[in-house]
Amino acid sequence: MTNPPDGEQYSIDPNGKSWTIPLPDASLKELEGWFTDSQHTLGELPIVVVQGLGFVGMAVTGVIASAGKESPLYQVIGVDLPLPETYWKIARMAKGLCPVPGVDLDLDKMIGDSFSRRNLTATSSNSAYSLADYIVVDVPLDVDLDTVDSADGLKIRSAGFEAALRTIGKYMKPDALVLIETTVPAGATDGIAKRILEEERQRRGILEHLKLAHSYERVMPGPNYARSIREFWRVYSAIDDGSAKAANDFLSSFIETDEHPLTRLRSVDSSELAKLIENSYRAANIAFIQEWTVMAEKMGVDLFEILAAIRVRKGTHDNIRFPGFGVGGYCLPKDPLLAQWAAKEVYGSDLSLEMTLKAVEINAKMPLHALELAKEVFADSLARCLTLVCGVSYMPGVPDTRNSPTETLVDALIGEGAFVEVHDSCASRWDERSDLPLSNNLRDSQGRAELVVFATAHTEYKELEEEQILALSKKGARGLCIVDANDVIGDELAASLYRCGCRLIGVGKGHWRKMGLHK
Amino acid sequence: MTNPPDGEQYSIDPNGKSWTIPLPDASLKELEGWFTDSQHTLGELPIVVVQGLGFVGMAVTGVIASAGKESPLYQVIGVDLPLPETYWKIARMAKGLCPVPGVDLDLDKMIGDSFSRRNLTATSSNSAYSLADYIVVDVPLDVDLDTVDSADGLKIRSAGFEAALRTIGKYMKPDALVLIETTVPAGATDGIAKRILEEERQRRGILEHLKLAHSYERVMPGPNYARSIREFWRVYSAIDDGSAKAANDFLSSFIETDEHPLTRLRSVDSSELAKLIENSYRAANIAFIQEWTVMAEKMGVDLFEILAAIRVRKGTHDNIRFPGFGVGGYCLPKDPLLAQWAAKEVYGSDLSLEMTLKAVEINAKMPLHALELAKEVFADSLARCLTLVCGVSYMPGVPDTRNSPTETLVDALIGEGAFVEVHDSCASRWDERSDLPLSNNLRDSQGRAELVVFATAHTEYKELEEEQILALSKKGARGLCIVDANDVIGDELAASLYRCGCRLIGVGKGHWRKMGLHK
Repeated sequence: MTNPPDGEQYSIDPNGKSWTIPLPDASLKELEGWFTDSQHTLGELPIVVVQGLGFVGMAVTGVIASAGKESPLYQVIGVDLPLPETYWKIARMAKGLCPVPGVDLDLDKMIGDSFSRRNLTATSSNSAYSLADYIVVDVPLDVDLDTVDSADGLKIRSAGFEAALRTIGKYMKPDALVLIETTVPAGATDGIAKRILEEERQRRGILEHLKLAHSYERVMPGPNYARSIREFWRVYSAIDDGSAKAANDFLSSFIETDEHPLTRLRSVDSSELAKLIENSYRAANIAFIQEWTVMAEKMGVDLFEILAAIRVRKGTHDNIRFPGFGVGGYCLPKDPLLAQWAAKEVYGSDLSLEMTLKAVEINAKMPLHALELAKEVFADSLARCLTLVCGVSYMPGVPDTRNSPTETLVDALIGEGAFVEVHDSCASRWDERSDLPLSNNLRDSQGRAELVVFATAHTEYKELEEEQILALSKKGARGLCIVDANDVIGDELAASLYRCGCRLIGVGKGHWRKMGLHK
Repeated sequence: MTNPPDGEQYSIDPNGKSWTIPLPDASLKELEGWFTDSQHTLGELPIVVVQGLGFVGMAVTGVIASAGKESPLYQVIGVDLPLPETYWKIARMAKGLCPVPGVDLDLDKMIGDSFSRRNLTATSSNSAYSLADYIVVDVPLDVDLDTVDSADGLKIRSAGFEAALRTIGKYMKPDALVLIETTVPAGATDGIAKRILEEERQRRGILEHLKLAHSYERVMPGPNYARSIREFWRVYSAIDDGSAKAANDFLSSFIETDEHPLTRLRSVDSSELAKLIENSYRAANIAFIQEWTVMAEKMGVDLFEILAAIRVRKGTHDNIRFPGFGVGGYCLPKDPLLAQWAAKEVYGSDLSLEMTLKAVEINAKMPLHALELAKEVFADSLARCLTLVCGVSYMPGVPDTRNSPTETLVDALIGEGAFVEVHDSCASRWDERSDLPLSNNLRDSQGRAELVVFATAHTEYKELEEEQILALSKKGARGLCIVDANDVIGDELAASLYRCGCRLIGVGKGHWRKMGLHK
């Protein structure tokens, strides 16, 4: 996507709009212009820089910029890299637009309003760091998922994180607080961030104590994304009491701590580990139910009914997961692995996080169970089968395709020789698999499908009526097979579709099998 | 324990009292006497027989006998076998005494009061079944835990359960409801109980439809044992609508269903599976935290502090378990295995419940982690080490030693050549290991121990003061090593004991290690 070095570079946003990436000088000028204007309008406010404008970073930027009842508490600058794959986020935010609009309408409004009241901008200029009183780090730190089963061991991709911290160290004011929100391997705040910041500060001859803290986000993907930052319990830790005090004051200024008090943990390792345990627990709970899903199918019982009966046990069993299609998104596939990596590489231990690794393995394979169900109905051969997969987002109602479990299914379907079409009613792009045309209109597939897999429980799918589903079928009603991998089709509709000649099979829906709906 | 065949047989209760086991005729006469008297006093009430007077059976008996605000709803008869290992339960209950007193004072009172108002007795006479309108089955059905890793596959011990059902079939009134509460392998109500009951009824020429239901207990060990039967959500299922109606009416008569509505599941397989999933989930959640316990220790952080911060996330993370010593009791070690057995033997599937089996394996080994910690402090050799293990009950405050994880530790300690003494402040007997003298008085060990392991978080242990702990030590303060395997010792006390020369190491207490308390 990069243009020739002598030409201008562009960055294309999710709507297809192209933004010219400015040269450093132009960026700096823009930033200075905004800053003068902002100070002129609002006076001198503490300045917050959010580094990294991904899902979390953009939301945090919006929330902090919105802090303050009558007037803003901060001048906020979102910073990301001037690259084709990231610059569009800056360009949009600097115009008061949420980088990925529609995730949370509240957030769109927060960013728009803050832009209007002139306490929010975005830039790729590193000079932003030299203005900041608070620097919030939300850059990615990934696991190389291809190395999960590698004999050489798990690898992480920390170069971007390290470079980001080095940039901060080069530019930061001596007494600014650096608050790391990125999910890192345990030990990284102390072992990577602190080390790099101190190296750079030493080079600059800074003698003051570094202020460094760690606090992780618990954002909930979905329509209350921004609210889940502001109105939720937060854990933090710091390298010393001075840093902890600064972090406490800063976090309290934009989080509703009256109802959701902060918890300080003793060491930065502790809060890093807390985050990894939280997400590993979630991953393990999801994986746990997969084997019972298969069991219920073998037994011919309805696992959804059973789990609903179990979930009445508040406090011990109410978080037991329902069966599903698979696990995706940025966090759950990788966070457990960050812990395993740290156990070996940071703490030199041969500890194997057995339950956790097993969970990651089960979750990664989960979409293949939908494939097995489909093969069962098609007498084991999906060759040349016209297949429509509905749902690429990993969650209903969210246009987030990162690590989509649908990718696993689609690749396996293609491997079986099936012809695959992909639809999503929410995500308009599938960046990770731009080789596969993504439709947003079910009519595109009408009259073609032999097999339909419902992978995501988007509302649009749950609201489909019988005629709409039948219309997808190649041969009219007869012969259409539906794999309901995410509890999209109710029992009544299923029975009715079966009477119209469809064959149905569902993840966790053993009772359908007992009723013979797949025959 | 069985006496010569020509002599009388005795059964010895937990207090050491010996009860003569009556011959069948005498039992029958006693039962008839009670019945005449009870009918004379209370009139004709529906009759409930509870089969099996173990922990659950005795509690259910007490709760059903206590049903009815002003006057009793039922005449209740507890039944068990006239064997040395069980008859004492009958003998005690027939005198208005709770078989295992002190588990729950409410239950002791329920049984005493019901005895006084003459609607409760207990017997070994099978004639009880011929009186019953409702028969509640609470007999054990065990997994042969020795076969867990056996090449021939897992084995269950269902002969007792099958014999119990056969007895019911031989004696029951044609229209009595049989309600199975025993935790069974999925498929057993239909495949074992119904089959046996119908065989016996056919032999007797009974033409009426069998009334058979399944509903599992969710009793919580501890001081609210009986209340957890009466005031908790209950799941049930039945072989047909008539049985379901009878089960619903019966359960509603002694459970507070206004606040805790019953859930009917579609098939008996479903509620059997529900129970197995519930307990497997609990087992998996306990196992999950074990690897993070080791991780926290390697990292030198306090896992208790971290988990407390995580548990504020209501609804998703508030049931995450704290580190512990191990898993015991009747249910969690075996229930997951009943499911695995059923998958293969009942449903003919090669499904492996991977997460669940891994959890059982981790939980079984968990007590050995305390051993590893001890060895670490003792430079890897525990030979001739005078060791005091505090806690045999698998739960604090409960005198229940079934499948005690302490057994695993003690055997391993002995294997290492240590001299082991065992103490419990709650359980007065350790039936499963009567070869090991169990002390109830910490003074017995005073001045002898080199190593103390706190295995159960009994209140008495948590309230120990510094001097009391130091007094356990062989060489005065110097040299005593304490392994806190169940969060018995607080940080302040730990630091103070360390200053007195003790060495301390704790499960999940990485911060102690970081502070060097084990050195």
